[in-house]
Formats: sequence, C-alpha cells, structure tokens
Amino acid sequence: MNDEIDVLTIGETMVLLNPHESGPMRHVVDFRKRIGGAESNMAVGLARLDHDAAWISRLGSDPHGQYVRDTIRGAGVDTQYVTFDAEAPTGLMFKERRELAESRVYYYRDDSAASRMAPDDLPDEALANARYLHLTGITPALSESCRELVFDATRRAQEHGVTVSLDPNLRFKLWDETMMRETLLSLVEECDVVLLVSKRVRCCSGRTIPNASQRSFGPSVRTKLS
Amino acid sequence: MNDEIDVLTIGETMVLLNPHESGPMRHVVDFRKRIGGAESNMAVGLARLDHDAAWISRLGSDPHGQYVRDTIRGAGVDTQYVTFDAEAPTGLMFKERRELAESRVYYYRDDSAASRMAPDDLPDEALANARYLHLTGITPALSESCRELVFDATRRAQEHGVTVSLDPNLRFKLWDETMMRETLLSLVEECDVVLLVSKRVRCCSGRTIPNASQRSFGPSVRTKLS
Amino acid sequence: MNDEIDVLTIGETMVLLNPHESGPMRHVVDFRKRIGGAESNMAVGLARLDHDAAWISRLGSDPHGQYVRDTIRGAGVDTQYVTFDAEAPTGLMFKERRELAESRVYYYRDDSAASRMAPDDLPDEALANARYLHLTGITPALSESCRELVFDATRRAQEHGVTVSLDPNLRFKLWDETMMRETLLSLVEECDVVLLVSKRVRCCSGRTIPNASQRSFGPSVRTKLS
Amino acid sequence: MNDEIDVLTIGETMVLLNPHESGPMRHVVDFRKRIGGAESNMAVGLARLDHDAAWISRLGSDPHGQYVRDTIRGAGVDTQYVTFDAEAPTGLMFKERRELAESRVYYYRDDSAASRMAPDDLPDEALANARYLHLTGITPALSESCRELVFDATRRAQEHGVTVSLDPNLRFKLWDETMMRETLLSLVEECDVVLLVSKRVRCCSGRTIPNASQRSFGPSVRTKLS
Amino acid sequence: MNDEIDVLTIGETMVLLNPHESGPMRHVVDFRKRIGGAESNMAVGLARLDHDAAWISRLGSDPHGQYVRDTIRGAGVDTQYVTFDAEAPTGLMFKERRELAESRVYYYRDDSAASRMAPDDLPDEALANARYLHLTGITPALSESCRELVFDATRRAQEHGVTVSLDPNLRFKLWDETMMRETLLSLVEECDVVLLVSKRVRCCSGRTIPNASQRSFGPSVRTKLS
Amino acid sequence: MNDEIDVLTIGETMVLLNPHESGPMRHVVDFRKRIGGAESNMAVGLARLDHDAAWISRLGSDPHGQYVRDTIRGAGVDTQYVTFDAEAPTGLMFKERRELAESRVYYYRDDSAASRMAPDDLPDEALANARYLHLTGITPALSESCRELVFDATRRAQEHGVTVSLDPNLRFKLWDETMMRETLLSLVEECDVVLLVSKRVRCCSGRTIPNASQRSFGPSVRTKLS
Repeated sequence: MNDEIDVLTIGETMVLLNPHESGPMRHVVDFRKRIGGAESNMAVGLARLDHDAAWISRLGSDPHGQYVRDTIRGAGVDTQYVTFDAEAPTGLMFKERRELAESRVYYYRDDSAASRMAPDDLPDEALANARYLHLTGITPALSESCRELVFDATRRAQEHGVTVSLDPNLRFKLWDETMMRETLLSLVEECDVVLLVSKRVRCCSGRTIPNASQRSFGPSVRTKLS
Repeated sequence: MNDEIDVLTIGETMVLLNPHESGPMRHVVDFRKRIGGAESNMAVGLARLDHDAAWISRLGSDPHGQYVRDTIRGAGVDTQYVTFDAEAPTGLMFKERRELAESRVYYYRDDSAASRMAPDDLPDEALANARYLHLTGITPALSESCRELVFDATRRAQEHGVTVSLDPNLRFKLWDETMMRETLLSLVEECDVVLLVSKRVRCCSGRTIPNASQRSFGPSVRTKLS
Repeated sequence: MNDEIDVLTIGETMVLLNPHESGPMRHVVDFRKRIGGAESNMAVGLARLDHDAAWISRLGSDPHGQYVRDTIRGAGVDTQYVTFDAEAPTGLMFKERRELAESRVYYYRDDSAASRMAPDDLPDEALANARYLHLTGITPALSESCRELVFDATRRAQEHGVTVSLDPNLRFKLWDETMMRETLLSLVEECDVVLLVSKRVRCCSGRTIPNASQRSFGPSVRTKLS
Repeated sequence: MNDEIDVLTIGETMVLLNPHESGPMRHVVDFRKRIGGAESNMAVGLARLDHDAAWISRLGSDPHGQYVRDTIRGAGVDTQYVTFDAEAPTGLMFKERRELAESRVYYYRDDSAASRMAPDDLPDEALANARYLHLTGITPALSESCRELVFDATRRAQEHGVTVSLDPNLRFKLWDETMMRETLLSLVEECDVVLLVSKRVRCCSGRTIPNASQRSFGPSVRTKLS
Repeated sequence: MNDEIDVLTIGETMVLLNPHESGPMRHVVDFRKRIGGAESNMAVGLARLDHDAAWISRLGSDPHGQYVRDTIRGAGVDTQYVTFDAEAPTGLMFKERRELAESRVYYYRDDSAASRMAPDDLPDEALANARYLHLTGITPALSESCRELVFDATRRAQEHGVTVSLDPNLRFKLWDETMMRETLLSLVEECDVVLLVSKRVRCCSGRTIPNASQRSFGPSVRTKLS
Repeated sequence: MNDEIDVLTIGETMVLLNPHESGPMRHVVDFRKRIGGAESNMAVGLARLDHDAAWISRLGSDPHGQYVRDTIRGAGVDTQYVTFDAEAPTGLMFKERRELAESRVYYYRDDSAASRMAPDDLPDEALANARYLHLTGITPALSESCRELVFDATRRAQEHGVTVSLDPNLRFKLWDETMMRETLLSLVEECDVVLLVSKRVRCCSGRTIPNASQRSFGPSVRTKLS
C-alpha cells in the first residue's frame, strides 16, 4: 500500500466482555462481546472524522483475534499491518458495572499475542507513509519487548519525520508504579505531543503542573480535555 | 486505489431483522440485526478465502446504511465505491423462522437507496481493475434503472475484458414472473458464466436442462451445487 | 355495531422497533417490537380509564399489521373499522436511545398502508355513534389522500354533531414546514377543541399566544399541560 | 351485547412462564411470559378462522389477570363476561423443556381465581346468544364449585338449545384418577359432541373403543385427530 | 454436625421473578429468577463476612425449592436443617420495577411450604450450637403454626442461652395491621436485640420513639441505619 | 471437619463462556457464564445421588473463582479445601456451538491458579477421611507441579487405604501426545479403577483392547459407558 496515513497507531486491543446487567461480577451471568483498546479507539474516532487512520497490533490467530481485526477494519481503519500469532491468544478483559461501588476490570492479557510485539511489528514501510505516530503508556507496560517497541518506534519516527504523540494512559494494575513513572517520563522526552490530563500529570511527574509549564514535558505539549 | 480486484460485485444488501425465536412473526417480539444480500455474501465468502473482492451498492445515509457498509468492510471486502443516498433509506427485511410451516420474509425495500442504482453506480475505474464481475438476477428486479445497470454493466465488462458471472437468484416476490423470465434469459445471453441450479433452470427456461446442454444458456455455463 | 363510542380516532400506528440498549443505532443489534402511534395511544389511554374508544386505520395485510391491530384491540379499543391493505405494508419506525446525544427516530412509512387512507376509511356509521372525533396533525402529513381525509372528517363530524378535537403533533421530519403551518392553521379553524402546547403554538402560528388569546385558534381551545 | 356467538367456552387460563432455554428447571434463570389454557386456545383458534368465539373465566384482579384478558381479547375473542376477583390470584404455571428427559409443568393454581368459578360465572345471557358451548375435563378438576359449574352449564345449555362439546383433557396431576374417571364419564353423558383421542378414551373408560362404537359415549361423538 | 453456628436464622425464602425491564407488570414479558427472603439475605451477608451462619426453612420438594437451597448453600450458609415438603410448593413473588410510579410485589406464597413451618422445624440440636437466633416479623405473618414457631423459638433460645435478635420487617400486605401490631409488640418483649428503624417503630407502636426511649421495647434495642 | 468423604476429587474447574446462539465464534456476541471441569462435574453428580463428595482445587482470588466455588458448593459438594491464589487467575474457556462444523473450545488457562497446584494442595487430613480419590488425565497436563501432584496423590492414597479411580480424559490440545501417553500409562499403573472408553484406550495404549484384557491396565479396570 502506498496510501498516505494521517495517523498510525500501535497497541493492544482486547476482546471486552461487558455484563448485560450491573452488579457484582460473581453474580452476573450474561456478557456481551465488544472490543477494548485505547489506540484502536483513537484510530476509529479519527476514521469517523474522515482521517486516514491505521492501527497495528499482534492478535491471536483465533476467532477473538479475527473479531477484533474485523471490527476495527469495519470502522474504516487500515489494518493491513496487523499480524496473527499462532502461539499466543488474543487478550481479554471483563468489565464489572457497579451502581454504588467502584467498577473494576479483570484482565486475561498476560502473555497475550500483543504482549509479544517487538520493534519489527512496526514496519518502516508503514512509518514512511504516516504523518503522525500515536502511542500510549499502556504498550510499554505489556512486556519488555513492547517497551523496546515504543522507544524504537519514537526513534525511527523521528528519522522519517513523523510527529509522535503520546497519551500516557496510566494503568496501575499492569505494572509497578516506580517503573511506570520512570518509563513514561523517558518516553515523554522522546515525543512531540503529549496528551496531559492534569490529574495524571501530577501522578506521573510527582508535581502539579501549571498550564504554563506543560512544555517542560516535551517540545510541544497540549492538555487534553477530560 | 489502483489495486487489483479479483471479483467485483454490485447489488443490494439490506438490514435483516432475524427473530430471536421461531414461531409466527406476529408473536415474535425480539429481533437481532444482521445483514442480508446475495452479492455481498459472495464477496464476503471470497474475501474469507483470501481473494480480493469488492462490493458496490447504494445505501441510505442512515445508521442502517453505515452498519451494512461497516459489516462488509469489516469482513475484508473493498467498499470504496459504495455511496450513500440522502434521499432514500437502506432496504430492510424481516425473516420469519417456522418449525412446521414454511418460513417467509417481509421486505421494506421498495424505493430503497439500492433500487435507485443506475449505470453510473458502477464506475469504469472499478471495472478496469477487476478480473470478474459478478451479478445476480435480483438486481434487475429492483427497478428500471437497476435493470439498465446490469445490462450496461455486462456490455462495459466485455469492453474491459472482464469475465461476467451471473447467479439468476429467482425472486418471485419481487417481480412479475413473465418479466423475470424474459429479463433473465436476455441477461444469460450476455454473461460468461451462469451458476445454474437445475430446479431453477427449469423454472427460468421452461424446460429441463440435461447436463450436456447447459452450454446452450451461454458461452460457458457451470452447475452450482445446491 | 350499534354501540356508543365515546371517542373515535383515526390515524397511523406503526410497528416500533425499540433498541434493547442505548447507544448509536449503528451499534445496536437487538430490538424489541412494540407499537407507536399518537391516535391509538390516546384510544388505549381512554379505554384504560373505562371510556369506549374506537381507533380506525389502514394496516398492511401482513404480520406487523395483525400485531398492531391485536395489541390495540387487546387494550380494549374497538378496532372493528380497521382495514387491511394487501398492496402496502404496515409502517415501521426505529427508535434510537442516547444517553448524551439527542435521540432520533428512523421511519419506514413512506407509502405505508396508512398513508393510503382516504375519506372512505372513516365510515359514516362510525361517526354516527361517536361523541368525539379525535384527530392529530400527523395524519395530514402522510399523503394527499390523508389530508383530504382529515378535512372531510371534520366536515362530516359537524353534520353528525360530533365534537372534533385536534392534537397538532408537529412532525418536522414528515413534511415541509410551510405546508405544515398552512394545513394545520386551516385545520384548527375546523376543530372544536385544540390541544395546545405553548411552544408548539408559537411554532405553528408564528407568534406567541398569551393565554387569553388562545381562542383565536378556534371556538374552544384549551392548553394541554406539557 | 346482543351479538351472535358461534362458540362460547369457559375455563381457566393461566400465566405460563416458559424457559428461555431447555434444561432442568432448577438451572434455568430466564422465563418468557405467555398464556396457557385449553379453552382459550380453542377460542383463539376459532377467532383466527373468523368465527365469533367468546371465552369466560374468573381472573385475579392483578396484572397477570389483565395480561391474560388483554391477550385473549387482542386475538379477537369476546371477553366481555370475564370477571376479576380481588380475593384470589390468577393461576400460574412453569414449563420445563427437556431434550432427553420428559418435560414437566409446575402449577401455582390452587385457590386461583378461576378455581372459585361457580354456576353464576356463566350468565344465561351469554348462553342465549351462543350456538355451541365448549367445555373441557380440566374445569371440573379445579374445585367443587367448578364441578357444579360444568354440570349446571350442560343442563342450561340444553334448555337454550345450545350444542355442548367436550374435550376430556385428562390432567392426572390435578385430581384423583378414580374421581376423574367417574366425573368425566358422567359429563360425557350430558354432552353432544365429545372430542376423543383413542388413547385417552381407553384411559377414561377402561376399554378400547373401536371407531364404530364411539357413539356409545354420547349422542354424537367424533374423533379428534391427534 | 457439631460445628458452632454464630447466627442461626429461620424464615421463608421465595423464588423471586425479577423483570428484565422496568414498566407496568402487565407489559413485561421476560423475568430473571433470583431468590428473595429477609432471613436468608441476613445469613448470606454474614457468611460473606466470614461468620458461621445457618438458615432453616421448609421448601417445596420441587425445582424452585432446590434452587433456593442451592443458592443459599452456595453462598456459604449452612442449610443442613432445611427440609423439603412434598405437599406444598416453594413460595414465589413477582417484582415490578417502575420508574415513576411506586413498585409493587405480587406474591404466590399462600399455603407455601414455608407457611407450614411449626416449632419442630427448628431442632434443639441447631439451637444448642448457636450463639444468636435471628427472627423477623415476616414469619409470624405467614400462618398460625409459623406464629407458634417464633414464640416457641424465643422461649427455647433463652433456655439454651442463645441471644435472640428481631427485625420487625412490617409487611402490611401479609396480615391484618392490628394483629401485626399486637403480635410484634409481644414478640419484641421476648427478644434481646430489636433492629429498629424509627419510621417503622412509629408504625408498630403507635408513637414516635425518641432515641433515648428505644430501650422501652426490650432489654437491648439498637437502631438500624436505613 | 471430621466428616466422612465418599469420594474426594481434585482438578481444575474453569469459568465456561457458552454462546447464546450457535455459529462461528467470531460472530457470536452474547455469552452465558457457567462452570466447566471434569472432576467437579463428577463430584456434583455424586452429591446429587446423595454421596458425600468433596472437590479440591486452587482458584484465582477473583469473582470468577468465587463463582466457581459457590456453584460447586451450592450443588452440595464439600469445598472446604479449596484455596484462592492471589497471584494467578481462575481458568477460562469459551465454547463454540456449530450445527454443521465441529465445535471447538478456546482456553485461557495457561498459568491459571489451578495450574499452580502442587502436592500440598491435597492435605493428608482430606485423604484420611476419604474412601475414594478420583483423578483425571487432565490434571497432569496442566503443569509440572500438577503432574507431581497426581503421582504424589496416588502414592499417599495407597498409604491411607484410599481407592484411586482415574478417568484418562485425553486432552490433545493441552499437551504433547507422546508425553500424554507416557504419563497416563504410568498413572494407570498406580490406580485401582480406570474408567476406560474403548476408543480412548486404543488411542492411549496404541492397541485395541478386548473386554477381557482390560485388566491389563491395572488391578481393577471397568469400562465406562459412553
């Protein structure tokens, strides 16, 4: 494909099992299958606004993986660089909906196909056609090879003149907080645009950031409304 | 897009409302939304077998039309030539499932967006890249302009050296039987491959066709298993 | 039937497909069948309050039509004057439920059986036994013959000494706004009781109506609470 | 009402809770509400064939009773003689669907509103307009007063020149077998038409009945297909 | 079993049929099976907090009874003293969920298995191992023999040195208000701990109770938050 | 607990997600939660036949684990030796139901809590009270420590005079076939009763076994009906 890609993104998308009813998950018996993934959500939203968006990931070569790919492709996102891994399953998450208590999620994503992504999952050919590369703080939490992938991707993006944007997306359930903070602060240094939610910035950097100093996080930082 | 298309097809795909339970439709209260259309079914099947398939149609510019397009695109079919018509709705059909009595369908497709298709809905650019053009006997039943479309399409296909295949798909509910017979027999003359089911051939031509004489219907006729 | 009818009403009732869940309609897959129609709602409500209410309409001679008639008849409304049209389907509407965005409806009612109603659909025999005739501003929006029906009905009602009430029920999606305004203002002149919602009055008449001047719309105008 | 009634019938109709899925009832969690009653089934079937059918019963003055009445009325059956009892609930039954084991039903009908029916529940006015009175062998199983009702009804029917038909409908779960046999054999003597299923005849009379001797059960006996 | 029981409780638990959707019950068609019973709710809650709780009742020897027992046993409550009665069914209740109107319940519990409980249903062996006996004001409303049971139980509990707690749980639908008041005031006299909700206290005693005077109801009275 | 256990069993039970409808899993969107595990199935069946059955396992300390334990406990099986592992999730499986193609299952059980079971998960105290220990050929397929567990369990069972039964339950998806064969043939040597299905015996041993020679597999071999 030689088509232009407005925004290229890479990350894990899981099958999401959403309860038909609210209540404690041990009592819920019916679930509706959907998909869940921050990067593909972004790509789907951009496609709906008529941008050319592409999403890259590794999925299990199982029906869950086909479902995730078909859903994202159906929404108009370019999925040609998605690969299917015969050795590992598509990640999975259960959502709990509570009316009074706080809702929780339950993951089955350890050793998922996406956690095995590495620098090679992002081909130079894809970067060469892209204007933006969008990453999140979730991917480096998945595995050592995923961590390599995001740093390698930011480096190669610069070589291709691709603008790199980052949504930190803090996921305390997925990794150690100290490691999260160190990794994301390094990553922020490499990115051109960082989507900052002030509450999260404080959490990530250890200090409150006045609007004026947001640029201290990188060359071009804008605050996301949230 | 300059990509090669193995099989290009054009026709109506409706939103199909499928009952959750079997029984007479007046008693059924819950329906599941799906899609239904002979040409897009063929395209989806070919895409699943890793052929490059493209489907063209006109849909209502409504959520039903988006759903039809997204579902077919999600299955890996090229939908770039699909258009959305702000003046007419996406066609609709209800299916009845009976255990003892015969099942019936109920259409809401008169004056649907697809019934307004005309020769221009099939761009030369699409034909130029295709190896096969697949038509069905349903399209000429939809409207006068759809009838023009299929005859014009076979003529232009020949100019581009595209092989034309036809599945007669007799739909007695959609048009007058005499008109159906005359139109389809003319159309058969223009096609390179006709998918014949012996029961339908008899109905369409008024005589039983021995295997050996199937070629009398066109230059290259093969029997479909059914 | 020689029974007394407290309130006789005439208008379209459609099959209403209601989503099982809220969200954009292109993502909703399950629908529950119900009925929807302003005039039959009124009749059902009156029957529940132990008034003798009759509803007249033309339905498709299809399972949807049977379902609409059976549901309204089951609620205790007299449906003996309802007819079934073999040439046109029962109208249909899809409802979208949104939590944040505005909800929308999607109609399949063009050329429905009810849109083919004409003065003859309201027999003199029915009027002769009625005390009230209730009309809405939806019926004249359906077709030319439906427009004739409502004006003819108000005229004949006066001959039989039947009080005519009108709920304007502005439906911007169904007809041109100028035509709506002209038609309804004429109709108001013919009616004895008009249910006015101040917001709608302004829209319909082009001016705000102080409570005192509501009678300018007809001989006996009362404001509906809304 | 002075309308002619082709067939008048009287008996209990319960709310029927039907499982969404097959399997042992202790594991089933979802149920769909329907209605169940032999006499009203007959009346609904006759109404569908365009006969004037009327059904009489006593229901609880609760939402279940309204639902039963509305459903039967909606099907076109005359329900004007149905009454609502504030002292007793509408009967209820659960159905179990098994694929391998035999299906069972579980009743909540002891002391239901219908079990309190007595001769007065069948007004002479209704009989006076009817051509047929249809009874089943279920009603006398419900209570002493219901037993009186059926014998009183057959006597009064004869006075009005109304033909009485009986479907024995053996229900072993509802009463003692000896009492059932004695009661039904007496009842058969009073009826004009008895719907006999040979298997049931043997059970009821203690002997096999050749086609030729079916009349021994009453003046005019025909075999029901089953 | 010689295990210690922290809290022993006795009372009726019904199968609860909960509508899938809100709205007037005559329009609701789908129900989800659950269980409902004040005493077993208490036992389940205590078991979840790691107390040893036991629940005693009489259930129908039907699938509903098995379901109730299995659900409570599954929650970790000791059900070894539960018995199954072949002569009477498990109680049943329907819940209505309304958004604007007040919700109602519809019972099928007259002559249920639990209403046939009597002093013998609470064996001395169970009391001998318990620290607390928990009763509610619902049980004495069920029948004469259930009334005997609660008074006999409080007497025997004292003999075994078991502390008796009472939740009055006023159920106006189940019994005559005067009888309710008299019975519960007598019962309160026999109990060690009474869970008082001020609104209910007023209803039960006929006067408002200042916090300071709550003890007038029994030796040790605490107010439940509600 | 000092109660006698007729049959003690140990093994993994997963949450099973069962599709609401048949069809290829990538198209199914609704799932019903159940449990699935050969050993607990056996225990539940025995409990239903009034035997004292106990089931041991390790579950995730998550709502899925609570659900599995509660369901099995609710069925009357002793679950007091079940433990909850905060480090690993409860295993999961999806079932596909096909009408024409073969059905498949999709596991999420690698590194599940149960796969971390080891000899200590079966306490001597439990064995001391049991008459039978029931094992399956699934457990040794889960992990190295599970393999140790089954061999250690058969050895300790003999010391306590407990009869050991084995259902080989070949699971080709879970382990290498050569390893399966070697492990199960060794395990058969240690067991007192082996449930043999002739088809499986051939697969496991590499030869067809006439009824008479079944004992060659162990001291006391009986054929299971299948």
